[in-house]
Amino acid sequence: MGWPADMLSGNRNLGLRMTDASSTRPQLKIRRINLDTGRENVVVMSRRSKALRPEVFRGFSRVGLRRDAKVLLATLLITDDGLVAPDELGLAEPAFRRFAEPAGSAVTVSPAPPPDSLDAVRAKIHGRALSAAEITAIVDDISHYRYSDMEIAAFLVGSASFMSSEELLALTQAMAEAGTMLKWDRPIVVDKHCIGGIPGNRTSMIVVPIVAAHGLMIPKTSSRAITSPAGTADTMEVLARVDLGVDEMKEVVTACHGCLVWGGHVNLSPADDILISVERPLFLDTREQMVASIMSKKLAAGSTHLLLDLPVGPAAKLASAMEAMRLRKLFEFVGDHFGIAVEVVTTDGRQPVGYGIGPVLEAQDVMAVLANDPAAAHDLREKSLRLAAHLLEYDPDLRGGSGYARAKQLLDSGAALKQMEKIIDAQGPSNARTELGPMTADIEAPHDGVVTAIDCLRLNRLARTAGAPIDKGAGIRVFKKIGDSVEQGEPLYRIHAFDVSEFDLAMAAIRIKSGYVVDGAAGHGKSV
Amino acid sequence: MGWPADMLSGNRNLGLRMTDASSTRPQLKIRRINLDTGRENVVVMSRRSKALRPEVFRGFSRVGLRRDAKVLLATLLITDDGLVAPDELGLAEPAFRRFAEPAGSAVTVSPAPPPDSLDAVRAKIHGRALSAAEITAIVDDISHYRYSDMEIAAFLVGSASFMSSEELLALTQAMAEAGTMLKWDRPIVVDKHCIGGIPGNRTSMIVVPIVAAHGLMIPKTSSRAITSPAGTADTMEVLARVDLGVDEMKEVVTACHGCLVWGGHVNLSPADDILISVERPLFLDTREQMVASIMSKKLAAGSTHLLLDLPVGPAAKLASAMEAMRLRKLFEFVGDHFGIAVEVVTTDGRQPVGYGIGPVLEAQDVMAVLANDPAAAHDLREKSLRLAAHLLEYDPDLRGGSGYARAKQLLDSGAALKQMEKIIDAQGPSNARTELGPMTADIEAPHDGVVTAIDCLRLNRLARTAGAPIDKGAGIRVFKKIGDSVEQGEPLYRIHAFDVSEFDLAMAAIRIKSGYVVDGAAGHGKSV
Repeated sequence: MGWPADMLSGNRNLGLRMTDASSTRPQLKIRRINLDTGRENVVVMSRRSKALRPEVFRGFSRVGLRRDAKVLLATLLITDDGLVAPDELGLAEPAFRRFAEPAGSAVTVSPAPPPDSLDAVRAKIHGRALSAAEITAIVDDISHYRYSDMEIAAFLVGSASFMSSEELLALTQAMAEAGTMLKWDRPIVVDKHCIGGIPGNRTSMIVVPIVAAHGLMIPKTSSRAITSPAGTADTMEVLARVDLGVDEMKEVVTACHGCLVWGGHVNLSPADDILISVERPLFLDTREQMVASIMSKKLAAGSTHLLLDLPVGPAAKLASAMEAMRLRKLFEFVGDHFGIAVEVVTTDGRQPVGYGIGPVLEAQDVMAVLANDPAAAHDLREKSLRLAAHLLEYDPDLRGGSGYARAKQLLDSGAALKQMEKIIDAQGPSNARTELGPMTADIEAPHDGVVTAIDCLRLNRLARTAGAPIDKGAGIRVFKKIGDSVEQGEPLYRIHAFDVSEFDLAMAAIRIKSGYVVDGAAGHGKSV
Repeated sequence: MGWPADMLSGNRNLGLRMTDASSTRPQLKIRRINLDTGRENVVVMSRRSKALRPEVFRGFSRVGLRRDAKVLLATLLITDDGLVAPDELGLAEPAFRRFAEPAGSAVTVSPAPPPDSLDAVRAKIHGRALSAAEITAIVDDISHYRYSDMEIAAFLVGSASFMSSEELLALTQAMAEAGTMLKWDRPIVVDKHCIGGIPGNRTSMIVVPIVAAHGLMIPKTSSRAITSPAGTADTMEVLARVDLGVDEMKEVVTACHGCLVWGGHVNLSPADDILISVERPLFLDTREQMVASIMSKKLAAGSTHLLLDLPVGPAAKLASAMEAMRLRKLFEFVGDHFGIAVEVVTTDGRQPVGYGIGPVLEAQDVMAVLANDPAAAHDLREKSLRLAAHLLEYDPDLRGGSGYARAKQLLDSGAALKQMEKIIDAQGPSNARTELGPMTADIEAPHDGVVTAIDCLRLNRLARTAGAPIDKGAGIRVFKKIGDSVEQGEPLYRIHAFDVSEFDLAMAAIRIKSGYVVDGAAGHGKSV
């Protein structure tokens, strides 16, 4: 029902002929501004700009940059002084990199309307289930940096109250397809994933070399820490380079059957990384968003068989077996739809796994297990063997029930260690600092007794406060676990830090709540 | 259940004694950065800063600035070059203004945890009703710029699905008390408010001088346009200064019984302005948020009697009398609680009121009515008289039913015009441009027929696209209204603009949809 063109009075009353209009639109020369603005595209314009009347724009409004067919949406900041000249447009680093045009190139700028897909976000906020096409449009806009932070937050919060099964599938698929889709020329490509929350739980770095030593393909991509003191990528980076591109990753996997790389550089499900960067500061964490996030990465990674580790414990992400069961169903539902064989194991999430919390401390734990060091963490070794056993049994040539024995054989014989060294060599050296934080303090038992509870969430926060994962050598070394008897003054754990202010903050936090419960002998009571 | 201090091993293992820690925290000198970042507090730090290891910080992370007891939360940008020296911290204009310390002052910077009240926002997202104390803490943090955009969006979207009556009252009160609370020494302080959506509906500028000429106190504060092409403050600014402070406003009201000022400078319910700045780009618009927004302003303005204008029409904010009824109940509920006598009138919201859409065009309409110009818009005059009649009857000395006659007398006699001139003089001259946009185009009827519908939303958008309210002389002059017969080629309305690109955009939009429905004579059909 468009208005016929002949309804317009043409140019009769026009102060300027319309055909002249677009050709007279002034242009600005782009200038690189050395400003790291994180995920956001930010541009800077002079208030005295001759190209556009800047009174049209307010700080933090959204604008579109155009050069030929190339368009970039960005957030606008306005300056009065010499930061940019009136005929220039400053592009902060991320915007400059994404626009990918040389400094001095001419661009036009115009106010950018919000992406059309925001209509669907508003519909979601008002309770309507979205179609696959609507979800695909939202994910496409998000992965192309067309959403502002507040728009992403609106989508996440609007979806947090309810997401239908169809919406979950559509979201998973759209997120996977928005980035690299890896293909492998093998019928079985295995993967493992832990939903996180348990300090020190660095099993992938033991499971991958075992499984790869057996000859199964396990191209593992991992995340960096989001809310924890170390992700597998952060810990692996203590030993080897992890920021491999797709081709480099493929070379490593071809040579070693497996790898341990950071997913961020491979561009698997990039929208997921953007969503997480908003979920994190808002502490949003819903089951559907977790499943879509993980399964989109696995779908994009080309996995055929996925083992999921769901730790259950009072301070873990899952507090009960019932919750774990419901989450398992959701993972299986999505796995079935996309043809990924999903196996779920629930594990003990009551306390840290291993002794170290923080990248360097965890890497020490991992290498001790692989080297069959008698002092290695027994729980980390056993859990890794159990998970590897499940994965090995995906090999059709392995007898049912023999996975554990095979895993143990590969570990005890040194084959797994040798495979890990091969993977480390193939990925190349990292330039991460590997020394432990020199500022330390031991947290001691207040009285004789038995450790009856450890607050995983608390230890994670303390290790982060002490500087992990940014300071790889910061974190916590755990001395006592649940069931251990302790004497008054005996160290429960040790804090490591590099930075005085972070050390202070961690110590202040420990004074409020250490994360340990020690039940005393008769008359001593209980301490936390 | 704090961990006893004696559980810490003291300084035995510390690389640095803890008592030294805070005194060694390095300081940065603040430097003013000429960057308009809108509402957000933004600071810039060098990646080579000696004060803090910048690897701890990422772009767009939140930091706290401290100088003695003064604290400011801000979003951090990082630079590699000479924008700020390593021992400096750049403060963008809004942050510099709010921190209010001279350039060169020493400050410390630390990573800022999210405000505690965000826990309540997360509870709200997960469906819990909030206590008054929780809502007060949220509003306090928002009005002190402690929330990022995405955190504000999370609160708004989380509240959009459900808000209890108690939450609504608590939100209204907390928002009112977060800013200036005006007090007047009169028992009756009247106010009027329209929920908006109808182009050209500038009745306040006629109602205020009528009511003030009668001697009732009507200290009117208005908003600038949010999504419309003109707010009352924008239109009044064509005639007089509107950015008066509290004391100036009180002087005008004492001298004239009334005023027409912008609420923004008086700092009434400042959290509301911040919430609106996030609601607007997200197009969030719930009943509860609307009522809390309006009633918090009226509560803060010290109004005792409030007349609410609720336009109903297919493209108005309220599409049916039923919707208007439900909204009325909500306004009355909140008014009763706070002792404000609320009266609600539903009005015709099917089409624009008056002829002008945009500040200058609307100001011309208003002055024509006040001057009893025979060519003045009849609908604007009648609606204003009707609203003024309701307000005048709050005067205990006026007989019931005589309000309309009194209003008409004050208008026809020129007393209202005289009062308006007095208010304009008292508020002082504005330096706004008052000429009409010189680029014009007439939109003509495509065939003979009768105008049967006008899309208010569409005309609002077209007038905004043409440059209103930023260009005060941009907008639309309406020639034909619903029920008018038109001949083919006869102008329906005229677009005014100053800027070629905006003129282009408006014309392109008109070609898609003009906003008018003309039902043709037999055989001509219908056009929109």
